Amino acid sequence: MAIYFIGLGLYDERDVTLKGLETVRKCDTIFAEFYTSILAGTTIDRIEELIGKPIRRLSREDVELNFEKIVLSEAKDRDVAFLTAGDPMVATTHSDLRIRAKKAGIESYVIHAPSIYSAIAITGLHIYKFGKSATVAYPEKNWFPTSHYDVIRENRERGLHTMLFLDIKADQNRYMTANEAMEILLQVEETKGQEVFTPNTLVVVLARAGSLNPTLRAGYVRDMVNEDFGRQPHVMVVPGRLHIVEAEYLVEFAGAPEEVLEKT
Amino acid sequence: MAIYFIGLGLYDERDVTLKGLETVRKCDTIFAEFYTSILAGTTIDRIEELIGKPIRRLSREDVELNFEKIVLSEAKDRDVAFLTAGDPMVATTHSDLRIRAKKAGIESYVIHAPSIYSAIAITGLHIYKFGKSATVAYPEKNWFPTSHYDVIRENRERGLHTMLFLDIKADQNRYMTANEAMEILLQVEETKGQEVFTPNTLVVVLARAGSLNPTLRAGYVRDMVNEDFGRQPHVMVVPGRLHIVEAEYLVEFAGAPEEVLEKT
Repeated sequence: MAIYFIGLGLYDERDVTLKGLETVRKCDTIFAEFYTSILAGTTIDRIEELIGKPIRRLSREDVELNFEKIVLSEAKDRDVAFLTAGDPMVATTHSDLRIRAKKAGIESYVIHAPSIYSAIAITGLHIYKFGKSATVAYPEKNWFPTSHYDVIRENRERGLHTMLFLDIKADQNRYMTANEAMEILLQVEETKGQEVFTPNTLVVVLARAGSLNPTLRAGYVRDMVNEDFGRQPHVMVVPGRLHIVEAEYLVEFAGAPEEVLEKT
Repeated sequence: MAIYFIGLGLYDERDVTLKGLETVRKCDTIFAEFYTSILAGTTIDRIEELIGKPIRRLSREDVELNFEKIVLSEAKDRDVAFLTAGDPMVATTHSDLRIRAKKAGIESYVIHAPSIYSAIAITGLHIYKFGKSATVAYPEKNWFPTSHYDVIRENRERGLHTMLFLDIKADQNRYMTANEAMEILLQVEETKGQEVFTPNTLVVVLARAGSLNPTLRAGYVRDMVNEDFGRQPHVMVVPGRLHIVEAEYLVEFAGAPEEVLEKT
């Protein structure tokens, strides 16, 4: 039979598309993974209630090491749904899963959903001007990644915006806040000293994208680092050169200081 | 009352989210614009049938010049839906509309939907490695834009992928094909001669994103330029440096020549 990679969208159980819901309801077995991304505004119980069938939640290990045994074996003679938050192909690991399905002789289909990659446009920043994106990870002992800093610098040299994803440690129930990300980047700045992310850098924070009332705030790091953006997930943008309409939007909807209008 | 910017998603009337459908059904007046993007797999009649209410389709002029008179005046004492294909904030003009609503004292809300900005991940190309995107427009008398060529060059210098949107002239019912876009870029190459887009450039074409059976093809321009990708909409990617999993995916799902595996 086949495997359907179905996105659940951004925030709650009502962010799935009609096509996604109809398809998952027709599937015989339903898996889901929430370690690459979460749906903060709902619970698995509520998703199960909407679908009318039980969901088997998979760990990173289940997906990355045991996909053949757990998921593909099931898909040999049944229709299987594989649910993820956001759009199902955005997590790079999922394109690898499609390859593994194909090699096992199993057809797969993709049903798209709202994703932060497009929803970030609610910041008012023009989406075609986003450069490469990067992830801010929790530093660990002997591991303090800093490539996000270089990505911001390279994008800004070209006037481009940088979207920063914040670390998710689903197994520990730890979801990085924008405040933590700012602290980490300020530490990197202290080491690298290239004036890429300082207390005077303008940043934009979007929290709980996909809800009807997401928090959107723009300001300088010195002011933003102590601000309360409410519950995670958070995502942060370091803007490049602002067009006047982008600046105006940030002032109107994100409380940006009016002086950003003069810098366009 | 309020204005709800609601995305319809990528392809047909079943690509709207449950939240989007519930919200539009509660609105008193429903507008839609399809000049920035189209839903190729459905008709306005079918969308109206799903919603259960009539839709007033707006032209570019209605939206850009007469938004206050046509839409905002209505929103003063009713709930108004403004429908668009894709995600509602991706077209830069829509963020300007939100500003105009706010200045008229009208609250606005955004309901996200699948967008090509995230769905492009179905190409297997890692989405965080996309750089700035660009649009290939139909050249006109005395106007032959070439900035897309420079965007491809700049992205490729950093190993990044470039997504190219293809021109839409909704009023003339003209939707650029990937073939036409390749011809235009080959012409720019002849003028600029920087070896950015030649017959030997690898390109990826995605047609009818959002349908269950989109066409996905990867190959060299010399072979792709005469290939039939089926009905529009088409979108084209000029890949940067390929990771091995990206190359493998293009071979498995897009018919890319196996030699791309050796260039990773």
